[in-house]
Amino acid sequence: MNIVSTQGLTIDSAELREKAQHLFDELRTLTADESGVTREAFAKGEQAALDLLSAYARAHGLKCTTDGAGSLIVSLPNDDLTTPGLIVGSHADSVPQGGNFDGGAGLIAGLLCLIRFAIEGRSGGVPVRLLAMRGEESAYYGRANIGSRALFGLLTAADLAAKRQGEGRTLREALESVSADVNAIENGERLLPPNFAASYLELHIEQGPVMVARELPTAIVTGIRGNLRHRRVVCRGEAGHSGTVPRWLRRDALFAVAELLMRLDEHWNRLLERGIDLVITSGICETDRNLNAISRIPGEVYFSFEARSQSYDTLEGFYELFRSECRAVSDQRRVSFEFDERVYTEPARMDEGIIQRLKAVSEQLGYPTELIPSGAGHDAAVFANAGIPSGMIFVRNRYGSHNPAEAMDIGDFMAGVELMYTFIMKAAAT
Amino acid sequence: MNIVSTQGLTIDSAELREKAQHLFDELRTLTADESGVTREAFAKGEQAALDLLSAYARAHGLKCTTDGAGSLIVSLPNDDLTTPGLIVGSHADSVPQGGNFDGGAGLIAGLLCLIRFAIEGRSGGVPVRLLAMRGEESAYYGRANIGSRALFGLLTAADLAAKRQGEGRTLREALESVSADVNAIENGERLLPPNFAASYLELHIEQGPVMVARELPTAIVTGIRGNLRHRRVVCRGEAGHSGTVPRWLRRDALFAVAELLMRLDEHWNRLLERGIDLVITSGICETDRNLNAISRIPGEVYFSFEARSQSYDTLEGFYELFRSECRAVSDQRRVSFEFDERVYTEPARMDEGIIQRLKAVSEQLGYPTELIPSGAGHDAAVFANAGIPSGMIFVRNRYGSHNPAEAMDIGDFMAGVELMYTFIMKAAAT
Repeated sequence: MNIVSTQGLTIDSAELREKAQHLFDELRTLTADESGVTREAFAKGEQAALDLLSAYARAHGLKCTTDGAGSLIVSLPNDDLTTPGLIVGSHADSVPQGGNFDGGAGLIAGLLCLIRFAIEGRSGGVPVRLLAMRGEESAYYGRANIGSRALFGLLTAADLAAKRQGEGRTLREALESVSADVNAIENGERLLPPNFAASYLELHIEQGPVMVARELPTAIVTGIRGNLRHRRVVCRGEAGHSGTVPRWLRRDALFAVAELLMRLDEHWNRLLERGIDLVITSGICETDRNLNAISRIPGEVYFSFEARSQSYDTLEGFYELFRSECRAVSDQRRVSFEFDERVYTEPARMDEGIIQRLKAVSEQLGYPTELIPSGAGHDAAVFANAGIPSGMIFVRNRYGSHNPAEAMDIGDFMAGVELMYTFIMKAAAT
Repeated sequence: MNIVSTQGLTIDSAELREKAQHLFDELRTLTADESGVTREAFAKGEQAALDLLSAYARAHGLKCTTDGAGSLIVSLPNDDLTTPGLIVGSHADSVPQGGNFDGGAGLIAGLLCLIRFAIEGRSGGVPVRLLAMRGEESAYYGRANIGSRALFGLLTAADLAAKRQGEGRTLREALESVSADVNAIENGERLLPPNFAASYLELHIEQGPVMVARELPTAIVTGIRGNLRHRRVVCRGEAGHSGTVPRWLRRDALFAVAELLMRLDEHWNRLLERGIDLVITSGICETDRNLNAISRIPGEVYFSFEARSQSYDTLEGFYELFRSECRAVSDQRRVSFEFDERVYTEPARMDEGIIQRLKAVSEQLGYPTELIPSGAGHDAAVFANAGIPSGMIFVRNRYGSHNPAEAMDIGDFMAGVELMYTFIMKAAAT
């Protein structure tokens, strides 16, 4: 490897791990809530996280500045931020009473890599910059990826007018409060200079159970699933006395929805056997609370529909299946389906070159080389869909995320940091 | 036919129909509510209905008295109520804002037959008595068939302590208010003299859609479905992020319940093909309202289960299937099912002899001879299960019952009355 330590210093793995542990502990303490941590976007908790990072970065000789969306940029002292670089990023905010690692892990990983470069020195390759973004979670303004979308001029007037939890200050006011360039954002200007980000890498805890189930401390992300949703589909049949209406005269809305779900489940299973990336969920389903009774055949059932995939074609294809199965069930059971607005969130593919290099580095380090999709959204999707080659490293995490029970092992995290560090060194060497 | 008119008088069908229309109109007017009619059990509306009947009966030379449960008995003047008779019965109460014909039709039919006998005379056969019962609907005290169950000593201490709509006066107080023999009721004494009721016949509107669909003005009831119920079954799986948990790691409680319902539906369909009487319903089904979200795999689903059949064996057999399918789905989808108390309501068979005689009379009159089950409960079930040979005549009715839209054609009703009248005449002749 082409490493030159300008000062002849090195940092050993125990020391790096100690710094990591210290940073996670500080971050948790500074943003602790009744349960878990709260780092509200454009507010106290998020700011405390950014302040901790910048103080720690400066103490290690790194430079700090902010971007036009009020996010923090940390860089090596000799980086004038004008040449295309590798952005190592994640987000500083959390959901209310969330976990310490969602977002925090990626920021601390990036900071540790920069600190290691600052101590051990690094020659050649593209500049590496940490981008600690604001407002990734949709919990406060009902909009996700605010910090990253602002950088690409993707915030709409409706986004800016969105109120905090539906009734507080607007996102525009929130952005103003962190000195963001609201005029440029409003005009849809791209705040990120074209040459600033040559590529993007994000380390994040996995928010699902796959890596625990497969015993993978680290994994490489293939893409970020987009989704197609209906918030509310109404299945209308005909209510009736449960004792007096025989099967041949029934128009039971619940049996109709059950049949629909089972038809979709069968398609899903078959598509998975063909290696297609897909998850489907009906998170909300209920008979009408004002009318339902044990002895009443349900006349109406309300349910939500969601399909997620890394592939746009899969989403559209499955959506067609969904609608055609609704028609089939309508005919079969003499019910009707009424759909609210279809909401689409674009999937994102991670860059194939980055995936292959992460695989090669994983192999070299003796780490697993498994590829897994990301089911949750990330700022990496915004970068990828803006045309910037992007990659993601997942670190194993128990009990999901968006809850205080979220649990990442520091050993797994350090493996993720080592993977990121070695990847950057390789990139620097090429 | 062995008819002797003592006074040589007859009543023609137009006159009888006019009386029927008058009685229905009066009944509706006297018990009208904001919408539909309200004849609260042991209260004003029910009393008004009974008062109308007894005044009309007396005006036509009939005798009126009350039984130990405060219900009205109407009989011919020469009937001393000591010899075994045919009881023609139904109920005077209604659900709040219910329809005019549920209960009312049976009472007016019986009264018209007695009036016809009083006018035209009748010789031989068993005495015929109209029994206008109180408290058949469970709407007020959460207990059904109060009037008929009291007659057979079947009201429990818990029944008597039940409060009006959960908070008003007790059923005991309600019974006292109509001068019922509460001490005897409390002691579980049989209020009906053993020889009073040799058989029981009830005319009632159909509360389901079968007769409309099959174009049957009248039908003969084979039995009254009993039921097996769980008010609340909990299916527990595991909640999770809809994007991050792949199919093989899911424990989706909603998909599990959907599969269960489809398995039950398939069994149901097969049992119907074998001619078995069964209806199954899950009237209430919902994901947890405090936790559900579009992007959350449902961890818990609550649902009710009900099977109805005229056969105890079918109910028990289907219940076994239900539990065994719950076990199969538990294994398949790694969920569990938790059941509340199982509630059983006994089915009742109508007397085969009465059914055959009703069929013969229907044939003679040129009426349909179709046999159909009753899905809703009736006082006839209490009589049948107390060992008294019982029968029921259904009259076609649109839009179900327990609602103001309930709609019976007076022509259909008069056909039912003719069927009842001719049946009694035949019985009298044998």
